Amino acid sequence: MFKAKAYSVASATASFVADTIPRREAGPRDVQIEILYCGICHSDLHTVRDEWASVMPTVYPCVPGHEIVGRVTKVGPDVTKVKPGELVGVGCLVGSDHGCPNCRADMEQFCPGATFTYNSPDVHGTAPVTYGGYSESIVVDEHFVLRVPENLDLSGVAPLLCAGITTYSPIRRWGDIAGKKVGVVGLGGLGHMAVKFARAFGAHVVVFTTSAGKKEDALRLGAHEVIVSTDPEQMKAQAGTFNFILDTIAAEHDINAYINMLGLEGNITLVGAPEKPLPLSAFALLFGRRSISGSLIGGIKETQEMLDFCGKHNITADVEVIPIQKVNEAYERLVKSDVKYRFSIDMASLKGE
Amino acid sequence: MFKAKAYSVASATASFVADTIPRREAGPRDVQIEILYCGICHSDLHTVRDEWASVMPTVYPCVPGHEIVGRVTKVGPDVTKVKPGELVGVGCLVGSDHGCPNCRADMEQFCPGATFTYNSPDVHGTAPVTYGGYSESIVVDEHFVLRVPENLDLSGVAPLLCAGITTYSPIRRWGDIAGKKVGVVGLGGLGHMAVKFARAFGAHVVVFTTSAGKKEDALRLGAHEVIVSTDPEQMKAQAGTFNFILDTIAAEHDINAYINMLGLEGNITLVGAPEKPLPLSAFALLFGRRSISGSLIGGIKETQEMLDFCGKHNITADVEVIPIQKVNEAYERLVKSDVKYRFSIDMASLKGE
Repeated sequence: MFKAKAYSVASATASFVADTIPRREAGPRDVQIEILYCGICHSDLHTVRDEWASVMPTVYPCVPGHEIVGRVTKVGPDVTKVKPGELVGVGCLVGSDHGCPNCRADMEQFCPGATFTYNSPDVHGTAPVTYGGYSESIVVDEHFVLRVPENLDLSGVAPLLCAGITTYSPIRRWGDIAGKKVGVVGLGGLGHMAVKFARAFGAHVVVFTTSAGKKEDALRLGAHEVIVSTDPEQMKAQAGTFNFILDTIAAEHDINAYINMLGLEGNITLVGAPEKPLPLSAFALLFGRRSISGSLIGGIKETQEMLDFCGKHNITADVEVIPIQKVNEAYERLVKSDVKYRFSIDMASLKGE
Repeated sequence: MFKAKAYSVASATASFVADTIPRREAGPRDVQIEILYCGICHSDLHTVRDEWASVMPTVYPCVPGHEIVGRVTKVGPDVTKVKPGELVGVGCLVGSDHGCPNCRADMEQFCPGATFTYNSPDVHGTAPVTYGGYSESIVVDEHFVLRVPENLDLSGVAPLLCAGITTYSPIRRWGDIAGKKVGVVGLGGLGHMAVKFARAFGAHVVVFTTSAGKKEDALRLGAHEVIVSTDPEQMKAQAGTFNFILDTIAAEHDINAYINMLGLEGNITLVGAPEKPLPLSAFALLFGRRSISGSLIGGIKETQEMLDFCGKHNITADVEVIPIQKVNEAYERLVKSDVKYRFSIDMASLKGE
């Protein structure tokens, strides 16, 4: 066991402070990583503030962060996937049982024994729960370590590990969208990645937003069109014409309005989870044989596929790089959606602590 | 134009009475049919009582009926599909524009110019609206006339034209269910057909019902198991294990309870349309990448496929045959779900009127 610098919170109402946390020595199949950047995901904020107490109560101190990119510093003797000095990433998962049907189907995120990167019982016993990427280092089973293409800006790679795979996976799974009309609801951390992926897959990309002011930025990110969803005329003009819509909104919203934008056998996939149930009109589904799906991050195999795709197509997140000392301020801005489009913590800033 | 005997209602609160209605002379591509049996569908009742006024107000007099089986008495000179004397069926559709993308994809039910079998503007001008199958005869464009296998009991064939295709289509589209666990929610006119089809496709069929008393009948119809959905223990024991669920309930119900019965990438398809929106938990969809779809009857091509399948597998609806003079009483019983599992009107009873 060794000590690593980190930023942690001591309670649901506390601010982040500099701290040290225990990390295990790399075992035979473990990879020790020097963390270079860590993205700030909304899930970090929910966990830190114990807003998911009913599903997964937060154990304090809490060190969040599951959009990790760094460099390998050490590997166990049985590791074959990566070597010291290589660029790697770690996303939402650091363990699973490897034997269940979901693991065998490369969907470790649905493994009943999955260990998440933070606030998950630590099966190694290093600490009561796992500690995430707001830290100078992390030690991870090689199965959950991703290879990162060398040609990308690393600060923008970090968010790929959650925001990237969360949007890439459902778009990829829906099938061939080349030449088809694809909608993206919401232009935040997830939505801006969805625009980039849908565009790279050759779709005609339309962003739905409530803020007319986001139009220019949506087009810059790769959208072909922008629909202001609060304008009934704009909505009506394209009703029934979408092949696929990715809905990234985690707040309450009228999902039937988007279902009605779908054409025959169109699908809308939710990647955000509003707290309250969404009122669903069965009629909207019946007419046109439409469907709604949900999707949750992605498995390790498809996360690697996503990173390779990003390397090939030069895709990264649009980030605002901050030092770790600004993390409390960043959280306040995140609540107000005041970020384009993801904060990425430069972990070099932790060295002075 | 000629006159045909029929039973009609004069207003939303009126009873059925004997009547005569105009039918057009068979045109070049038309088929004239002597109706032998007509099933009673819930949609008939909704239309007769103008319960869908907000979507499609009922024009009176109204002659419902879209589960029609009969024998060809006359064909126009250009008809190639059937000959006089042959057994045929007519379902929910009697016209479409044949040119739109939906028609070209063999999904005439979603054609913007579709003509439904009753209460749809009559493009031939024979009457203000189309008149359905509670009549001694009907004249239909050959495209919408289905060939009926000769080996089946005709009273039980009639309901295949709506209840049959409504359940066959989504089960078939979901894919290969052989050896997989398939649920059927509700054991009424639609549900009992779903059980027969799912069984014939080789699934392990489980009926969800609120009435423990329906267990024996469900097993007789082909179900392997019955879950009383109001028993949390029975629900919990099989949570997360279903590949596909067909939900035939048109009343309000907790759809999330059924979503939670689905395994990884499982689907629940709705064929009933509750009036009020259904509260949908996004979490239930996200965990397991599950989906909900809607389905609405089926196209002509797949309706023929369904009838051929029924001929091969000896599948018909379980019906209670009634004379047309009992139709008012049958409607009262239908409201109370007091029928196993479909009323089928023996149209010979109309001859004496």
